[in-house]
Amino acid sequence: MENLEEHTYHVSHEQRRKVNGHPPLLIWFTGLSGSGKSTLADALESYLIEKGIHAYHLDGDAIRMGLNSDLGFSEEDRTENMRRIGEVAALMLDAGLVVIAAFISPLRSQRELIRNKVGSNRMIEVFVNTPIEVCEARDIKGYYAKARKGEIAQFTGVSAPYEPPIQPDIEIDTSRQSIKASIGQISLLLAAQGLKLS
Amino acid sequence: MENLEEHTYHVSHEQRRKVNGHPPLLIWFTGLSGSGKSTLADALESYLIEKGIHAYHLDGDAIRMGLNSDLGFSEEDRTENMRRIGEVAALMLDAGLVVIAAFISPLRSQRELIRNKVGSNRMIEVFVNTPIEVCEARDIKGYYAKARKGEIAQFTGVSAPYEPPIQPDIEIDTSRQSIKASIGQISLLLAAQGLKLS
Repeated sequence: MENLEEHTYHVSHEQRRKVNGHPPLLIWFTGLSGSGKSTLADALESYLIEKGIHAYHLDGDAIRMGLNSDLGFSEEDRTENMRRIGEVAALMLDAGLVVIAAFISPLRSQRELIRNKVGSNRMIEVFVNTPIEVCEARDIKGYYAKARKGEIAQFTGVSAPYEPPIQPDIEIDTSRQSIKASIGQISLLLAAQGLKLS
Repeated sequence: MENLEEHTYHVSHEQRRKVNGHPPLLIWFTGLSGSGKSTLADALESYLIEKGIHAYHLDGDAIRMGLNSDLGFSEEDRTENMRRIGEVAALMLDAGLVVIAAFISPLRSQRELIRNKVGSNRMIEVFVNTPIEVCEARDIKGYYAKARKGEIAQFTGVSAPYEPPIQPDIEIDTSRQSIKASIGQISLLLAAQGLKLS
């Protein structure tokens, strides 16, 4: 009939895994502002790339300025922000990447939403449990000072709740442990998940 | 002061290119419904994966059901649909992937928006220029029949315009050329862009 061939082309997860040399995975950092999530995410990305792993740090600021530039900070918009991040992460896992994401994601329901989207066996939850006093003393972006003065509403840990993970895969306190040691701790779990890091 | 190291971790494009073995690239198929865009995209993805290229077909239906499930088909929503696709493609290029996308994208302004987002030198525009009579005769999803009956409004080629690319990088008529020959044609250009395909 037409010249369009009937054959269906389909790339399997197995083929993708073979090209990459590792399975896809989402490493999700949750914790207070200033807890050290982004620094850990950047350091982990660098470490994995050096090891030849196809890792990508899905940066919150880049998302806010790009894909989610139409969203504000109302509760509805925060939920939509998280939903879209979950969808993008799922697409990137489908593409075979090791996705690293660092978001305060204060509510258990938000993290559950992500977990349900990408699949529990493909997500590692890292709870960056740095004491709030340390986070506040760092206050790199000046957010805590503003939140204490009431200039930022609904600020996690000050005027909005943070629900800690009940059973995180990894827990890290960056006030007691170096970045290097933390990456070491995470890499042990990643190796167990099939990433060749030696 | 704190234990958080000051060192800034940053993965360069060069490092990513080294891990992947090729540069990132967006291959954008535009053309009428039924022109063969998706079949070409799937076939190209399979071909590139076989060659060890980190390729990913960003599927329009998957996006519509996932990331853009909140959008309808108003002009505003179609524009937002396209904007988000451009943002996701840009993130995936940043991650080093060869992204393959097949969207009718009937307006030049839509394709310009994508091009501006990802960068002209990282985008290859493939115009799938199959005659509308052939597309309509195929009518795999029955859209043309519905559009002719007025059951679908604003259907490209029937009741809404298609603005052909003025200077596409590649032009393919799937009624005159096999999928295999088309992939061969595309792969010549990809090889020139630094993808090792031999």
